[in-house]
Amino acid sequence: MEKTKNDLLLSETEKDLLLEVLISQNYVKELVSCEITDIECGVKKTEEARIKKLNDLFDRIVDAGL
Amino acid sequence: MEKTKNDLLLSETEKDLLLEVLISQNYVKELVSCEITDIECGVKKTEEARIKKLNDLFDRIVDAGL
Repeated sequence: MEKTKNDLLLSETEKDLLLEVLISQNYVKELVSCEITDIECGVKKTEEARIKKLNDLFDRIVDAGL
Repeated sequence: MEKTKNDLLLSETEKDLLLEVLISQNYVKELVSCEITDIECGVKKTEEARIKKLNDLFDRIVDAGL
């Protein structure tokens, strides 16, 4: 299977490692905020359901003090 | 249970959403690279096994063109 850009199949261990690094680098809030801003400014298109999930996740991240 | 900083319990859906955003924002390579640099410069301490996992993951991310 020819590899294409973004063809990154992550194992559960790698997923957990990436999320741990995301939090350890204190970047999780900014990352989600950037995605929400891209969508709100029209840079990216996405479904309503995804925007809602992103906003809910952002609120949880803020609540957790990250 | 009193919440402490970083007390963010993510569902599988939220984990996948965060990883999708990480890739969508083109930040996955830089993120892992920052963590590796922090460790190599002594800013962070970690076990050998974790550094190896981070380096292996970084190589896979580069291979995937991310």
